[in-house]
Amino acid sequence: MVQTHTVKSFDEELRSLRALVSQMGGLAEYQIRMALDALMDRDIDGAAKVVTADAQIDALEQEAERLAVEIIALRHPLADDLREVISALKISAALERVGDYAKNIAKRSTVLSQARHIQPLAIVPEIGRIVAQMLKDALDAYGSRDTAKALKVRDRDMDVDDLYNSLFRSLLTYMMENPQAITPSTHLMFVAKNLERIGDLSTNMAEIVYYNVTGERMAGDRPKHDDTAFAQAPDASRE
Amino acid sequence: MVQTHTVKSFDEELRSLRALVSQMGGLAEYQIRMALDALMDRDIDGAAKVVTADAQIDALEQEAERLAVEIIALRHPLADDLREVISALKISAALERVGDYAKNIAKRSTVLSQARHIQPLAIVPEIGRIVAQMLKDALDAYGSRDTAKALKVRDRDMDVDDLYNSLFRSLLTYMMENPQAITPSTHLMFVAKNLERIGDLSTNMAEIVYYNVTGERMAGDRPKHDDTAFAQAPDASRE
Repeated sequence: MVQTHTVKSFDEELRSLRALVSQMGGLAEYQIRMALDALMDRDIDGAAKVVTADAQIDALEQEAERLAVEIIALRHPLADDLREVISALKISAALERVGDYAKNIAKRSTVLSQARHIQPLAIVPEIGRIVAQMLKDALDAYGSRDTAKALKVRDRDMDVDDLYNSLFRSLLTYMMENPQAITPSTHLMFVAKNLERIGDLSTNMAEIVYYNVTGERMAGDRPKHDDTAFAQAPDASRE
Repeated sequence: MVQTHTVKSFDEELRSLRALVSQMGGLAEYQIRMALDALMDRDIDGAAKVVTADAQIDALEQEAERLAVEIIALRHPLADDLREVISALKISAALERVGDYAKNIAKRSTVLSQARHIQPLAIVPEIGRIVAQMLKDALDAYGSRDTAKALKVRDRDMDVDDLYNSLFRSLLTYMMENPQAITPSTHLMFVAKNLERIGDLSTNMAEIVYYNVTGERMAGDRPKHDDTAFAQAPDASRE
């Protein structure tokens, strides 16, 4: 049974706040799709749309923060309600960052559009597909307060890290064999890093949703498989 | 004249919250210094200390959030006080990210320690010095509610972006001329990107301080000079 507040407009305000966050989420999903399309189809106009959407997300984040602070100041929410407001603040901050990463991917797609055949590029749509699904699931979990779905998001983060590691190493080797492709390959590394970060942020959001619904932190250590900070191309190893 | 609250322990709680944030800031400054030393002096033990400090920062951030939520729930802060609590939350979130970037630099210093002479490495200490100063100034501005210092932080961000652009382009050229140095050069690109992000986050913090003190957003557009998403090595240009 859902508990309703005595003051009707408090519920309305909370719903408005949730709606703002969901709207940001929808824009972020759109951005990622467009950025990946821009990258794979070398679509420069699509890249420009991602940049426009990012400005909208930034504006919505400011609006969400303003509303959250107003709710706190005027309604003095306690316990579950306060957790709800703080969660909305944190998720909107995470979505703002997702927007930044998508925008960066779109910008790099402009340089990458000049690079015809970087062979490891083929792994990118696979990472993009998983990451877009993670974001969607995190947002669905937020919308429906679904803890099972939130847990599922975190489990997928390991797949992203594994694919990212694999791509990073492939690109190191590829650059050594194709020095003329160093510039686009470097940009592709940053694209992959941005996607990996979007996966991380989706996992953060899922953790916030879980905490929001249950009042408990997700059990167990977060799986973390990104070890590219130590990565070397095979022929770069010493002794 | 500073206004004091009727309930003494409210002031104490706010002071505790500020103290937690300042403590996180001190750790983040230490981390950056250690990470840069690890990088330049090839100091593997120093790199391990950065990783340890990051766990402390993460724990302090959770503690700051717990305290902030408690203050909101029990004290119903309004206007300036609420802005103060929300600012503390946002600055601690930014510092947690600074810690992550410093940790990533430290990790990469392990791979870089095996690479002897990457010539563009020389620009890194200069970027590191500016970024560490920006973080220090942002934290000082927070501690002393100094808006002039906060504005100064933002102005320096452009210098960081310019140096980062220059380093990025130098590394692209360097890799083409020295394909055997592609692996360490790539890690150095990510190190530089991490430093540039720490500069951004310090600027974010300065903006939060300014808003916290004045209730107004910093006037004028934020200078933004990072255009490496479009960067190409000279010999990679087409037509």
